[in-house]
Amino acid sequence: VSSSDAESPIVLAPSAAARPIGAKELRVLGEVGSHWSDAVGERGDWVDALPVDPGLVPRHPRELSPTRFGRFARLDPGQVEASVAASVGESLAAQVAHRLRGLVLGPPLASTAVVQERMRKLIALPVLSSDALSSVAYGPEALMVVLVLGGSGALGLSLPIAAALVVLMIAVGLSYRQTVRAYPRGGGSYIVASDGLGHLPGLFAAAGLMLDYILTVAVSVASGVAAVTSAVPSLHDEAVPIGLAVIALLLAGNLRGVRQSGFMFAAPTYLFLVAMLALIVTGLFDAAGRGFEPSPAPAIPAAEGAGLFLALRAFGSGATAMTGIEAISDGIPAFRSVEWRNARTTLTVMITLLVATFAGTMLLVHLEGVVPVSSETMLSQLGHHAFGTGPMYVYLQVATALVLLFAANTAFSDFPRLLFFLARDSNAPHAFLHMGDRLAFTHGLTLLAVVAGVLFVGFGGSTEALIPLFAVGVFLAFTLSQAGMVAHWLRTRKRGWRRSLTFNAVGCALSALVFLVVGATKFTEGAWVVALLIPSIVLMLLATHRHYGRVRKATALRTPPRNPKRGAIVPHGAGARQPLVAEAEEAPDQLQPLCVVPVSELDLPNLRALAYAASLRQPTLAVHVCPDPQDTERFLAEWKAWGDHLPLEIISSPYRALVPPLAHYIRALRSQKPELTITVVMSDLEVPHLWQRPLHERSGERIRRALRSEPNTVITVVPFHLASTSVGADGPPRHAADGTQKSRPPADDRDPALVDY
Amino acid sequence: VSSSDAESPIVLAPSAAARPIGAKELRVLGEVGSHWSDAVGERGDWVDALPVDPGLVPRHPRELSPTRFGRFARLDPGQVEASVAASVGESLAAQVAHRLRGLVLGPPLASTAVVQERMRKLIALPVLSSDALSSVAYGPEALMVVLVLGGSGALGLSLPIAAALVVLMIAVGLSYRQTVRAYPRGGGSYIVASDGLGHLPGLFAAAGLMLDYILTVAVSVASGVAAVTSAVPSLHDEAVPIGLAVIALLLAGNLRGVRQSGFMFAAPTYLFLVAMLALIVTGLFDAAGRGFEPSPAPAIPAAEGAGLFLALRAFGSGATAMTGIEAISDGIPAFRSVEWRNARTTLTVMITLLVATFAGTMLLVHLEGVVPVSSETMLSQLGHHAFGTGPMYVYLQVATALVLLFAANTAFSDFPRLLFFLARDSNAPHAFLHMGDRLAFTHGLTLLAVVAGVLFVGFGGSTEALIPLFAVGVFLAFTLSQAGMVAHWLRTRKRGWRRSLTFNAVGCALSALVFLVVGATKFTEGAWVVALLIPSIVLMLLATHRHYGRVRKATALRTPPRNPKRGAIVPHGAGARQPLVAEAEEAPDQLQPLCVVPVSELDLPNLRALAYAASLRQPTLAVHVCPDPQDTERFLAEWKAWGDHLPLEIISSPYRALVPPLAHYIRALRSQKPELTITVVMSDLEVPHLWQRPLHERSGERIRRALRSEPNTVITVVPFHLASTSVGADGPPRHAADGTQKSRPPADDRDPALVDY
Repeated sequence: VSSSDAESPIVLAPSAAARPIGAKELRVLGEVGSHWSDAVGERGDWVDALPVDPGLVPRHPRELSPTRFGRFARLDPGQVEASVAASVGESLAAQVAHRLRGLVLGPPLASTAVVQERMRKLIALPVLSSDALSSVAYGPEALMVVLVLGGSGALGLSLPIAAALVVLMIAVGLSYRQTVRAYPRGGGSYIVASDGLGHLPGLFAAAGLMLDYILTVAVSVASGVAAVTSAVPSLHDEAVPIGLAVIALLLAGNLRGVRQSGFMFAAPTYLFLVAMLALIVTGLFDAAGRGFEPSPAPAIPAAEGAGLFLALRAFGSGATAMTGIEAISDGIPAFRSVEWRNARTTLTVMITLLVATFAGTMLLVHLEGVVPVSSETMLSQLGHHAFGTGPMYVYLQVATALVLLFAANTAFSDFPRLLFFLARDSNAPHAFLHMGDRLAFTHGLTLLAVVAGVLFVGFGGSTEALIPLFAVGVFLAFTLSQAGMVAHWLRTRKRGWRRSLTFNAVGCALSALVFLVVGATKFTEGAWVVALLIPSIVLMLLATHRHYGRVRKATALRTPPRNPKRGAIVPHGAGARQPLVAEAEEAPDQLQPLCVVPVSELDLPNLRALAYAASLRQPTLAVHVCPDPQDTERFLAEWKAWGDHLPLEIISSPYRALVPPLAHYIRALRSQKPELTITVVMSDLEVPHLWQRPLHERSGERIRRALRSEPNTVITVVPFHLASTSVGADGPPRHAADGTQKSRPPADDRDPALVDY
Repeated sequence: VSSSDAESPIVLAPSAAARPIGAKELRVLGEVGSHWSDAVGERGDWVDALPVDPGLVPRHPRELSPTRFGRFARLDPGQVEASVAASVGESLAAQVAHRLRGLVLGPPLASTAVVQERMRKLIALPVLSSDALSSVAYGPEALMVVLVLGGSGALGLSLPIAAALVVLMIAVGLSYRQTVRAYPRGGGSYIVASDGLGHLPGLFAAAGLMLDYILTVAVSVASGVAAVTSAVPSLHDEAVPIGLAVIALLLAGNLRGVRQSGFMFAAPTYLFLVAMLALIVTGLFDAAGRGFEPSPAPAIPAAEGAGLFLALRAFGSGATAMTGIEAISDGIPAFRSVEWRNARTTLTVMITLLVATFAGTMLLVHLEGVVPVSSETMLSQLGHHAFGTGPMYVYLQVATALVLLFAANTAFSDFPRLLFFLARDSNAPHAFLHMGDRLAFTHGLTLLAVVAGVLFVGFGGSTEALIPLFAVGVFLAFTLSQAGMVAHWLRTRKRGWRRSLTFNAVGCALSALVFLVVGATKFTEGAWVVALLIPSIVLMLLATHRHYGRVRKATALRTPPRNPKRGAIVPHGAGARQPLVAEAEEAPDQLQPLCVVPVSELDLPNLRALAYAASLRQPTLAVHVCPDPQDTERFLAEWKAWGDHLPLEIISSPYRALVPPLAHYIRALRSQKPELTITVVMSDLEVPHLWQRPLHERSGERIRRALRSEPNTVITVVPFHLASTSVGADGPPRHAADGTQKSRPPADDRDPALVDY
């Protein structure tokens, strides 16, 4: 949980999750290290023993630099820097993928290219409020869709409900003004709720927000596509593919890491605002010509009673117009100095614009007698009423579609950042900490696009069906965020805290009310899904947090014991079981090694594994698992012919199993001496082509899997590459030490797997 | 390729593929070993160094034997034997699978349970000829189905075509009598063709036979199901599921490894023979009552002209009645002594019975005027004519269904054996050499069942559609087998070779004729599939053979070089590339080691990897890949606090990649000294639950994959188990050497992955 008052902006880098080095930990490290001192001797000896120069400096003038491909640059002594070329896999597939990504996403960016963007208010306003302002495109419609269920008689409720929403907008806006002041480094709901209320409420706020972002993408895209299909009805059947293409485009654009500031991102919001202003003014003029007499709405039969319940449901649906309000409090670091002050001004302007466009739209809807129909959005109907089918109408629709697209884009920048914060606090997989090669949070972006895409397709690209899911998560996050602010003021009691607390408390109470209303009235329509999802997400986050906590505890360094009796034999108790040895940070001289080499036959790969094992100079035991009794003699004869240099044990396996007997045998060995560190040295034949894999047993892989859960069992694989050796298979081995044999055609060191033989 | 005259039966054990130890290879082994002598010192020292007893003898009276679960029995010194318990994996999944298999398939059988079954002629006849005799159930029908295309006028051709087929049967039968004598150890088409004609013809024969066996299963099951649905028409729509169930049953039965001899397996064939005899005799009596006047067949309009082409096609379809003839020559070792003589007598009896039932059936078809209809088999129609709907009819249908089932079973015993021989000669994956725990060739059986099942479903369970695919493969194998015999006689010129050669040559010529006729006339009906499949299979077998040959060559031991200059520096040429070092059987003292330890942070798992690496006493270099420049300092501070015991190189990775820079760095190190054996020592965190895997980077796995193609790069994984260490995570490490700390609850040594924490 971050502290709220440090003035430096929050760093979005993987190191954010690294635990700070405490004095205690450094002390433990020192103690562990002092234990090593007598074990490993002088560091200088180790440096002298290195057969190569780790700094990659060529030792011979004729020798070409190992960095000849420009893969590494030398920095300070003890440091080299990897270039782009060294950051791409060696395989052909990796290289091709790298090229393709480069074409689509642009060349990789170095970490130093991260810049904190600073925006003028005039840019920040449209960029950060496209989500909130674009909600006007679907909020009023969502409200009216519910209201018409009550028939023509219920339409009269639209203005009072709109008035209530305006009050709510102002209250929440005032409340967020306090947040901006209190969290000048940026205060998203997750941070504020965690900080003020604790871990669990923070996770609930995060879960609500995650759903909110996902639904923002789905609803904004659905709504934007509806703006297009309202203008061009022939595209109506293509809504789902168009929407998916838009989501894919948003994903690609965000993976490319486009800059959020700049005129291009500001334009759509202003275009939309101008269009809305023109619409409302034209509409009001028309209405003024009629003496503000409302046009009669078409007669609609009542599907249900126009009671309080209907009004509350309409209110809940209309509340979706408030989504996106928190974007500014989230993005404070993006403002120019003094950040929080500029952000607060921008917030006020945004709320004003939101109230104006929302109230204006609702008024027009009332005056023009417009009701929702399935083939055309209400905004499009109002446009037709005001502008006919001329260029102004087209402009309105284009601006609406654009602003909705950019609203979805807001979610694409906020969702990965939320996951970053969750991962930083070990609530979400640490993979979400990593930035891809374009400095975008690849995993979070992809997750958002996939889930939103599935949701969009699952609901048939319909705004209406998605709305009931929407508001619950938003208002849960609003409520918790503002409750967190209340707690914050009560705790800090900074100057002016009473006034701020009042604003926040009102905002919190109203948000909580809306949350309850929406949850209750929309429960059967879809809110139950959210009611299941949010706790499930919270449980997943909690389980993740718990797991990381345990891992950190288990892997943390501990003070080594005072006087370990080296090599002392463990007295075996009466029970059949011995305690497992903890895999602790033994100093090198404390390890009690045993090398086990499974040998299937005495061929080149296996002899190489034996040679490697013997070169380790640990106690070594060769093991031959023999499924065929008639084969034992042949193997023993070969072993004797070779010279019987190492201890050999034959495991006869009359049931023809190969891997389980070996695993059990290693367990049996360990049960004699539990403190052993057993190294299993295996040869592994690497074939150059995929189709050749099934032709070999790959028992190495199976042994590795069987021994994965064995404590203190080190697996060592000595590879044998077919491609690089079969070339000279006829002649004597080409020892590089033998200077006379270097005329062989130069082997490509790029990828032996690609060398065809 | 096996020699033909050894009298011992062919052993069906994996060791059959092991190359015999040649004197030259033993000499090479000795030379390699002598090279080791000075490198590794006395064997006795190695034995004394072992910290455990490889024979698993407890060293202390109070110590419990490591074989306490009955997992190992001690044999001679240097050998232990794995019990059933030690042949089953340790994991819960493996244990459950083992129990389930035990229920379905019975307990595992030891290799010593393989017995060569010996059968009396009276048992061998029905067991080995169920495939051939049951062909009468679909051969005549296949013939007539083609003939009726020519309309009623063409039906008169049925008797001449049948007569030609009888001649063919006798010729092929006489030809196989020669094979039986020449190959007393068993002479399947693959063996005979390989032996007589060479590798490629052998593979063609094998490919033809493989198709034959697969089609036998599909056709026999389809035909058996047709016998059932003819009697019980209400089951007609369930033909495909019934057939699949039968195939599954056959697979399960064969995986269980049921004995092929015994009355149960003999009964169906005899029942069927009795039924056919009764049918033919009754039918001829009826016909005699009419003065052998044929009943008029229903008038059928001609779909095409009744010319030579139609007759040839009908002949080709009818030839499917000859499938299964080679079973006896294949199964000679199963006869009692003198095997080949008994087999030859049995073959003669079988051919006689086949000719009798086939000719009788065709005669009845002609006399009764029966023609094929889709809802009822011809045999069922003949049964109705002869027996009405009484018990004799039911008996006929049951016997037919049973014999067809057992005919399919013949394919289940022959197909895996063919694959075994192919694998023994390295033409097929060596996996087909292995017997499962019930001594059945699991892989071959499963392959057959799956392919036949797919084929059966793909053709909708219809015999008619499968027939055109059938005969081509069979007659290809017949032709090649008999051509192989001709070559055999020409080469060996044993007593009576001229007569045998004549029989084989006639059989071969006729078979070749039929092969060409069938291939040509059925080409468009489906034989083209076979014409594509057989060469494809042969190409696969050839590629496999070629691959194994190269592997054997590449992995064979080579005489070590005379005077390797140890440690001599390779002069670097002017070119940018250096030759790769062959991964040869260096003696342990020839390895030039370097240990590289990627360290992500200084926690317990990584320190353990460092300790392990340092304990190897090889030149060691720690490497820290740092994607975040701000993190470098923190890491360096920790490294210094620990004591800076080992050389450390920091790879700054501004493009945030972790694995590729490491792989490139290791390549750059190697390019300084190509003869290095680089050991990459990595820690790996093993989490107990599957869902926890995505929470960790598992960079170990990725590093392993990235370095897989690197020559001379050994991968060593030092595991760190969460489950077994987190228990005592708070206290000091529980060194087993510290005798005071053994009161901790006994850890279950069964499977730490199952221990919940």
